[in-house]
Amino acid sequence: MKNIIVGQSGGPTAVINSSIAGVYKKAKELGVKNVYGMVHGIEGFLEEDFINLDDYLKDENNYELLKRTPSAFLGSCRYKLPKVEGNEEVYEKIFNILEKHKIDAFFYAGGNDSMDTIKMLSDYAKEHNRKELFVGVPKTIDNDLPVTDHCPGYGSAAKYIATSLKEIIRDNSSFPQSRLTVCIVEIMGRHAGWLTAAAALAKGDDCEGVDAIYLPEETFDMDEFLERIEKLRKTKSSIVIAVSEGVQTKDGKFVCEISDSNRKVDAFGHKQLSGTASTLAAIVAEKTGLKTRAIEFSTLQRAASHISSLTDVTEAEKSGMKAVEAANEGQTGVMAIINADSSVSTYDIHDIANVEKKVPLKWYDFKKKQMKKEYLEYARPLIQGELEPIFKDGLPCHLVRK
Amino acid sequence: MKNIIVGQSGGPTAVINSSIAGVYKKAKELGVKNVYGMVHGIEGFLEEDFINLDDYLKDENNYELLKRTPSAFLGSCRYKLPKVEGNEEVYEKIFNILEKHKIDAFFYAGGNDSMDTIKMLSDYAKEHNRKELFVGVPKTIDNDLPVTDHCPGYGSAAKYIATSLKEIIRDNSSFPQSRLTVCIVEIMGRHAGWLTAAAALAKGDDCEGVDAIYLPEETFDMDEFLERIEKLRKTKSSIVIAVSEGVQTKDGKFVCEISDSNRKVDAFGHKQLSGTASTLAAIVAEKTGLKTRAIEFSTLQRAASHISSLTDVTEAEKSGMKAVEAANEGQTGVMAIINADSSVSTYDIHDIANVEKKVPLKWYDFKKKQMKKEYLEYARPLIQGELEPIFKDGLPCHLVRK
Repeated sequence: MKNIIVGQSGGPTAVINSSIAGVYKKAKELGVKNVYGMVHGIEGFLEEDFINLDDYLKDENNYELLKRTPSAFLGSCRYKLPKVEGNEEVYEKIFNILEKHKIDAFFYAGGNDSMDTIKMLSDYAKEHNRKELFVGVPKTIDNDLPVTDHCPGYGSAAKYIATSLKEIIRDNSSFPQSRLTVCIVEIMGRHAGWLTAAAALAKGDDCEGVDAIYLPEETFDMDEFLERIEKLRKTKSSIVIAVSEGVQTKDGKFVCEISDSNRKVDAFGHKQLSGTASTLAAIVAEKTGLKTRAIEFSTLQRAASHISSLTDVTEAEKSGMKAVEAANEGQTGVMAIINADSSVSTYDIHDIANVEKKVPLKWYDFKKKQMKKEYLEYARPLIQGELEPIFKDGLPCHLVRK
Repeated sequence: MKNIIVGQSGGPTAVINSSIAGVYKKAKELGVKNVYGMVHGIEGFLEEDFINLDDYLKDENNYELLKRTPSAFLGSCRYKLPKVEGNEEVYEKIFNILEKHKIDAFFYAGGNDSMDTIKMLSDYAKEHNRKELFVGVPKTIDNDLPVTDHCPGYGSAAKYIATSLKEIIRDNSSFPQSRLTVCIVEIMGRHAGWLTAAAALAKGDDCEGVDAIYLPEETFDMDEFLERIEKLRKTKSSIVIAVSEGVQTKDGKFVCEISDSNRKVDAFGHKQLSGTASTLAAIVAEKTGLKTRAIEFSTLQRAASHISSLTDVTEAEKSGMKAVEAANEGQTGVMAIINADSSVSTYDIHDIANVEKKVPLKWYDFKKKQMKKEYLEYARPLIQGELEPIFKDGLPCHLVRK
């Protein structure tokens, strides 16, 4: 391979840049001349808005900084490739750009929607006898990509969630029972409850853990929820409950829609959710008379590189390296996957694109509203180790595109 | 001094336990026999709910853990001592308890309201010829205690805010300008904007900083705010604005009350504020048609000991030590204060209790809505250094009262 290009797509994570670092590292090891980065994914690609990663990463210090930089260093996008039929000009444009810049392989770091791009392009290349290779690099805090045991981005988000919840639980339990506060913590994950499940990791010798976990995989029952709080208030001086932003009542309504039905939809037709915790906090305050507090981790949970998991960073880097290695062997239409033992391999993109992996409900105790030990055994290894930030003047440093 | 007692009061911080650690350390150096901790401040004191800190802190590892434990290890309270006249029995009870347990000195870590407790008790002791000594230890993320240059708790909260804002700004700028998002970040500080001002620290070589800062010291002008966003959207692909939870419009209404007038008041008569960012985000979305996001740091900003400032931790410990040293010299009715050079001394509590120190508006650029360099020179030293957490199984460990 002479020249390659890499892009980032979808919601950012704390380690998506480590994947880019891995792509660059392996490519340079293999003697690739130019490693281009597309600015804002396929959207920038179509405008030929590229950078040359040599301009940033030849310096070893910058390479280390990149691994500690949250969000998409190259810029991200939410661009869904149209189907080929009737949109041939988009595909022709893409392949013309690849040819013009003598690019042999195209790498894309993203989640379910982004892997659809790799599928469409590799399918098109095969059908049109094009030699360019297309390889996906997994990225999603949601952990909902299939086949791969887990996804880069999840471990760091889970570590942030568990760390912050330990601190929230301590904070919430500082006052006497007469000042009992019900704290509802809203966690990302529209349909898959992996991030919400990570709340279970907070529990340990020095932390009583959250009092209940509500996954989007289970129908949310308001009566059960309020009864649980009424029961908890009899013995506890602090109540902290983790809820997914995507919990729905049995009529298929998102909880956050109870108080607000004017939700917008994003480019993929997903509803923009928020306000689940504040909706529930208001209902609890009204029905129980208790003091409540709503906390949303919001984008903090996907951007907190200052407390990223070293395991996650390393796997993200390895998956980027594996993608390049695979292309170098002539593979296309595949995504790098991470196995349970942290080793990496590749898998057919057709089994991955547009498929959402949910939390297995056999790992969830419906009665206690807690994760079972099978989940804890699965997730605990993913949050191990720390990649200490590089501090300057009291704050973590990042690498920024100029 | 043979026996002493220490308590914590008011909203917790990331370093209030370092102050307790300092009290214990100095007391033991001076040969004090028993260092009691009151569980839930004066409220627990009145119930004689004490622990002996030897049971926890004789072990050096636990001492180090305590410094890394957020929230009030001893438990906190919000209890305002009534005025002496007509409530003599409360004061008699307090002094009877002190006498019964042979306690020579009473230390209280807290903010403005808590320092009132020290003032009332030391005044009562003088008037009634009691020998017990009462010394305050400063604690507040709000940084609004007078006389002291700055307050333990503020530096760590400021470090968390600046660190998180750097990450939020990166995250928010990951998409192209066509997906411009206005992110409104709500920061604590009801009347004093010290924490909101800390948003200014995010700016640096690797971060463009927040686009505007709205302090509660200035009247909030909705028209100016919306015009600023309209102007920013013309050139920027990301807008991040820091607002204090306490911003008020010129008719004296809190911004968060625009959409909700049913606010509760706490034990001190303070209104419970929240929802300023979400109120503003909704208004911006409606008036500009832009995508918006509201983020509240909530209790995360006062509990994030995993990213505490070493300078802050050290000063908290030193102020606890100074308080004990002062009592040992016979001082009473004083609070330990921190000077600009990080040295510690003591000051008359009468000049401190119930007085609120606001951000000097000469440090604020009203036109740019940014902090001037005088603020940055004041605050930057306070966030220097890190006290790395002690990690176990991927998460920071805390010391917990049994």
